[in-house]
Amino acid sequence: MSKRLAAIVSAGLSKFGKRDGLYARELFAEASRECFEDSRNLRPSRDIEALYVGQMCESYEHQAHMAPLMSDWAGLGHIPAVRVENACSSSGCALRCGIMAIMSGMHDVVMVGGVEKMTHLSTQKNVEYLAMASDFQFEQRNGMNFPALYALMAVAHMHKHGTTEKQMAMVAVKNHKNGALNPKAHMQKEITLENVLSSKPVAWPLKLYDCSLITDGASCMILTKPSIAKKFTDDPVYVTGSAQANDKLNLFERDDLTSIKATQLASRKAYKMAGVRPSGIDLAEVHDCFTIAEIIAYEDLGFCKKGDGGRLIEQDETSLQGRIPVNTSGGLKSKGHPVGATGVAQACEVYYQLTGRAGKRQIPDAKVGLTHNIGGSGATAVVNIYSKR
Amino acid sequence: MSKRLAAIVSAGLSKFGKRDGLYARELFAEASRECFEDSRNLRPSRDIEALYVGQMCESYEHQAHMAPLMSDWAGLGHIPAVRVENACSSSGCALRCGIMAIMSGMHDVVMVGGVEKMTHLSTQKNVEYLAMASDFQFEQRNGMNFPALYALMAVAHMHKHGTTEKQMAMVAVKNHKNGALNPKAHMQKEITLENVLSSKPVAWPLKLYDCSLITDGASCMILTKPSIAKKFTDDPVYVTGSAQANDKLNLFERDDLTSIKATQLASRKAYKMAGVRPSGIDLAEVHDCFTIAEIIAYEDLGFCKKGDGGRLIEQDETSLQGRIPVNTSGGLKSKGHPVGATGVAQACEVYYQLTGRAGKRQIPDAKVGLTHNIGGSGATAVVNIYSKR
Repeated sequence: MSKRLAAIVSAGLSKFGKRDGLYARELFAEASRECFEDSRNLRPSRDIEALYVGQMCESYEHQAHMAPLMSDWAGLGHIPAVRVENACSSSGCALRCGIMAIMSGMHDVVMVGGVEKMTHLSTQKNVEYLAMASDFQFEQRNGMNFPALYALMAVAHMHKHGTTEKQMAMVAVKNHKNGALNPKAHMQKEITLENVLSSKPVAWPLKLYDCSLITDGASCMILTKPSIAKKFTDDPVYVTGSAQANDKLNLFERDDLTSIKATQLASRKAYKMAGVRPSGIDLAEVHDCFTIAEIIAYEDLGFCKKGDGGRLIEQDETSLQGRIPVNTSGGLKSKGHPVGATGVAQACEVYYQLTGRAGKRQIPDAKVGLTHNIGGSGATAVVNIYSKR
Repeated sequence: MSKRLAAIVSAGLSKFGKRDGLYARELFAEASRECFEDSRNLRPSRDIEALYVGQMCESYEHQAHMAPLMSDWAGLGHIPAVRVENACSSSGCALRCGIMAIMSGMHDVVMVGGVEKMTHLSTQKNVEYLAMASDFQFEQRNGMNFPALYALMAVAHMHKHGTTEKQMAMVAVKNHKNGALNPKAHMQKEITLENVLSSKPVAWPLKLYDCSLITDGASCMILTKPSIAKKFTDDPVYVTGSAQANDKLNLFERDDLTSIKATQLASRKAYKMAGVRPSGIDLAEVHDCFTIAEIIAYEDLGFCKKGDGGRLIEQDETSLQGRIPVNTSGGLKSKGHPVGATGVAQACEVYYQLTGRAGKRQIPDAKVGLTHNIGGSGATAVVNIYSKR
């Protein structure tokens, strides 16, 4: 048995989607309420000792210093509450802070979560704010934005490995199929290959349906010291591996456009820590901010050989019935991508799957899961591994 | 002997001030360079295992996801780097994340720090961005800003405890006197009571010289597991108490305007953890974003009885020669307040004092120090206690 770093004893998600008329604080309260309803013997103001919450962008609501506010709206009282920001991996990093807070012995029970309220602003404003996750000096001010950055990676991957637009489109089709089975997903609608391939170009070769959604949503979960987890649930899930790695913020300074080195480094470390190989993973939530990102993640996480990502999706290996189901929740593509909430939302899906509560998208007998959360164009990658035992 | 949570083996500060033509990344590189020059046997890309860095506001440079960037500019390689944001207590919270990372056993050597680049923008823009640390719904959009929030506290304190404008002005005079002895301080200039009292009203009773400075700066330090500290320095300083507490973000929802409950809760916990009483503290860096904030901090930290803060400064108890020297560095008032850098900068001052390297402002025989870092109007407070042994 591998070492248990922390136990997950409860999880909660707000409905993801266009949540008109709500503030981030209200979305976070919705997620945390579900977290407490889902748990046994846990009361907000009595049991939770600290909160680590991810949010990418204070500009959306002109609101910094949001951690005490989220703590307040979740009813947590005067506990230490900390906001973590690493772009789209904000709550992946917050989750790791929570794990370390437990491991440190400083706290026995902590809440981790994330939130982003995005849809009240125009697409143009969203593109501008999200671009802050790339480098100002060399990327933003020269007109780069995220579809353009990932388009560069896609073109390089097509050139070097023969990946096709059709293979990328298959990622979108699969994730929409999964999302249609997830009542919390933003877009519960299946789409066809033709829909994707004929959708409006955003930054060639990426088209509208290759891009994840601008979504409002919040996620949270409660972590405890492993030895006390059974007090709160019969069915804890343990974090057995956790690693993060970083790389140059600028795409142009990286060694290779066709892989994300931070993912490779973090996953190698997480696998080693958990004592498991890629073949031992029963399901994974990976960071599909664009379809090409999922294909690159297959390779960097070791689910297939370098350059074979396109063939992996083509051979249906990552569907619900495949050898290694990926993004059973619908992923960022169909469940939605409220950037700050994504990392912990991925962990929630693995928790639901490993505790047999994933409804129509349940993977039978899932025992070991993995989450992969990227910040920006890959300057941050967080990989966690979870186990029932 | 109290428990050692982590050891400080090195510290570095950029010059604080108006640093025209530099980006935050360059300021952070300046601070980190000093950190490595100050240490023995520490190499950036080999020894540092993680970075936690505080920054309040991505709007200043239109730059989020700054942690990998700071890591890169400090030469730290592919290590996990995390940005923490809790308004003006951002690096206070980052420091605590670093302490817990050490305590968790996940890392043996980490860097913590903070940075803010502010002076390239107008005062108006600064006031607007800093206001994000207060509540959008009930404070910002009704025209509140930080001088106004602290003015409300000042008026309440004057009304309830008889605190005077002159006593507040004495805080400014003392801190400028200390700052004049600190070569890293933004404003190395003594001022008189008359200067303060006749300065332009900002939000009555607070005048220009009651307010801390808009400053560019960066801070960092290297923490290790206590048992290996002597590998890197002959003179480590240990963190023996660390606590954070939070309160309502809105001032109007708090129980009392004349004290900051989060400070009271955090300091009680930190004292207990360190096994020390307020009378055992040899020097303290407290959060003097406005002069009234230092007076309230005296009381909340237990340096005097509730309501006696004004008399404490009047009796010269907190000067360099006093019973409990406060803000020997010059504080936020004179050293400057690059908001994200402040929490770790306070810890740097205590480190310099406890290792006898505080130059002309050295407190003889200082053995135990305290830092007190506030976020916003007091929704976050971080209190740490440090000891030579």
